[in-house]
Amino acid sequence: MDGYAVRASDTFGASERAPASLRVTDTVRSGTATRVHTGSELPEGADAVVMIEATKRTGDDLTVFEAVPAGGNVGPVGEDVAEGQQLFEPGHRLRPSDLGLLKAVGLETVEVYARPRVSVVPTGEELVGSDPEPGEIIETNGQTVAQYVERWDGEATYRDVVTDDAEALRAAIERDLDHDIVVTTGGSSVGERDIVPEVVAEMGEVFVHGVALKPGHPVALGAVEGTPVLVLPGYPVACIVNAVQFLRPAIAAAGRGPPVTLPTTEARLARKVPSEPGVRTFARVTLEEGEDGERTATPTRTKGAGVLSSVALADGWVVVREEREGYAEGETVAVETWEGYR
Amino acid sequence: MDGYAVRASDTFGASERAPASLRVTDTVRSGTATRVHTGSELPEGADAVVMIEATKRTGDDLTVFEAVPAGGNVGPVGEDVAEGQQLFEPGHRLRPSDLGLLKAVGLETVEVYARPRVSVVPTGEELVGSDPEPGEIIETNGQTVAQYVERWDGEATYRDVVTDDAEALRAAIERDLDHDIVVTTGGSSVGERDIVPEVVAEMGEVFVHGVALKPGHPVALGAVEGTPVLVLPGYPVACIVNAVQFLRPAIAAAGRGPPVTLPTTEARLARKVPSEPGVRTFARVTLEEGEDGERTATPTRTKGAGVLSSVALADGWVVVREEREGYAEGETVAVETWEGYR
Repeated sequence: MDGYAVRASDTFGASERAPASLRVTDTVRSGTATRVHTGSELPEGADAVVMIEATKRTGDDLTVFEAVPAGGNVGPVGEDVAEGQQLFEPGHRLRPSDLGLLKAVGLETVEVYARPRVSVVPTGEELVGSDPEPGEIIETNGQTVAQYVERWDGEATYRDVVTDDAEALRAAIERDLDHDIVVTTGGSSVGERDIVPEVVAEMGEVFVHGVALKPGHPVALGAVEGTPVLVLPGYPVACIVNAVQFLRPAIAAAGRGPPVTLPTTEARLARKVPSEPGVRTFARVTLEEGEDGERTATPTRTKGAGVLSSVALADGWVVVREEREGYAEGETVAVETWEGYR
Repeated sequence: MDGYAVRASDTFGASERAPASLRVTDTVRSGTATRVHTGSELPEGADAVVMIEATKRTGDDLTVFEAVPAGGNVGPVGEDVAEGQQLFEPGHRLRPSDLGLLKAVGLETVEVYARPRVSVVPTGEELVGSDPEPGEIIETNGQTVAQYVERWDGEATYRDVVTDDAEALRAAIERDLDHDIVVTTGGSSVGERDIVPEVVAEMGEVFVHGVALKPGHPVALGAVEGTPVLVLPGYPVACIVNAVQFLRPAIAAAGRGPPVTLPTTEARLARKVPSEPGVRTFARVTLEEGEDGERTATPTRTKGAGVLSSVALADGWVVVREEREGYAEGETVAVETWEGYR
């Protein structure tokens, strides 16, 4: 407690009407007291603390209006954290408040896992960095994924666009096998797009090619020489859906921690959300908050070539599990925002 | 669509049995075709696109097995984003997917609000940076708050400890009035602690001193020469509770964006959570996930001097609003994790 460390016997019988008199010094012996604060160590020679409210100090003279028993206002050693106590489970992500605890118990350095290194390789002959000519498209999928890697506690290496050529793709993957994960992203065209999984299969193994997600043009999950390789589709929404589903937990696994969670919020559907049974559907929605604080989720247009705006202008998505056939208008649903925060 | 840009009239009557023959070149005129991809601009001279699936290419010779009408497989200008369309509301926090959209519409740079600059000034005569002598305590509150500032999209300036002296405090606040926000954090002792609000009142104005939060030894909210000054309490849990409640939205307001949200999760209470009506109570809990995926929230010990571990070892808190009198054992409650993510 905040106050003065003393020998309890020096306060014996002290009261408002008959206070004890002590002298404030740096060490505690009979007849002296030392200023202490909540959480500080009990000075040698002291066996109790008089609360500051029960004292009056004038210069170095201290008047004590209350008797304290031995051990009074003193916390036992180990009350907060006991010797040998485990503070955190392996894989725990250290939060700012945790660092305070580590510092308080005298740990200035701790061993942690490195942030996983993730190579992001955009692929597609039609992709350029800027100023597209007719027939060319600005590369955005890889850039977006590289930024998510950082949000998901990885370290991204964003590579130049690799054209749809087996030899070039092989070289690009080979170069980054020293990373913890290699991710390729496709361009938005879907024509001759199976070349990347083919290259991965030749170099190593493809475990999965295509999953029952919508939107989700075939994603491929494989590995080359022990390094996981994720082949993300080029359709922008599908690229993000698959990155959230597969890359986010992959980064967490490589970093031996829990995946970054996506905040969810509840909202009432302004329109029905259709879905195909057997396919997990990610229906993009915009959120609006009414004056009563109730939130409404409006499904966005998903037809047409509005491929970029339908991701960027959405606030989140409603996940319709494969065993369901959509949600009805007016139903209350959970909306996942895929940003980590908003 | 992915395929070849053509003049529709060149495909007139084309079918599987009677395909049309075109030549692939860089420009489209009668008899020629140009390779295009989903999302790319329609080349001059073309008025339709033949899907790649309906063609066969040998060298520069293209066989077209399908007739397309004028405008076929061509999205109208503005289908994705129309000219003059507002993409984002003012105050929108740009997400990685948003940057993709900006890039795609040709915006390489946009004007954004700067991250708010927040000065963090730890106060308390008993505080030291490391190696505490008896009577001294390691400074952790200010360090913790400085890290949260960064998580909440601010830029923190972490200052040296200022002792509990009006002159020193005044100088410390004065020095950082060029920041967007000044925050002071107290040490964990509570004795003579009202000196900071007094200094703020002398220099400017204190709007609020003490709020009905628990744990929440009096927080003070004021301003000096237009700069908001937050005086956070020294009890570590109270410091974090008040930082989350007041500093987090203050940073958002200074940055003109929405505050970073705290992810919540639902859990069943393993024990009752008592609370005093009229006071908003933040009851710390640990979370455990059962084999059925159900989560259980166990309130942590809040007695004794276990001031640091009760924050650091908790996973989140249950907020009991002032109009309620606690929650019963077994109730399903929302648990806020104050980390932004886990």
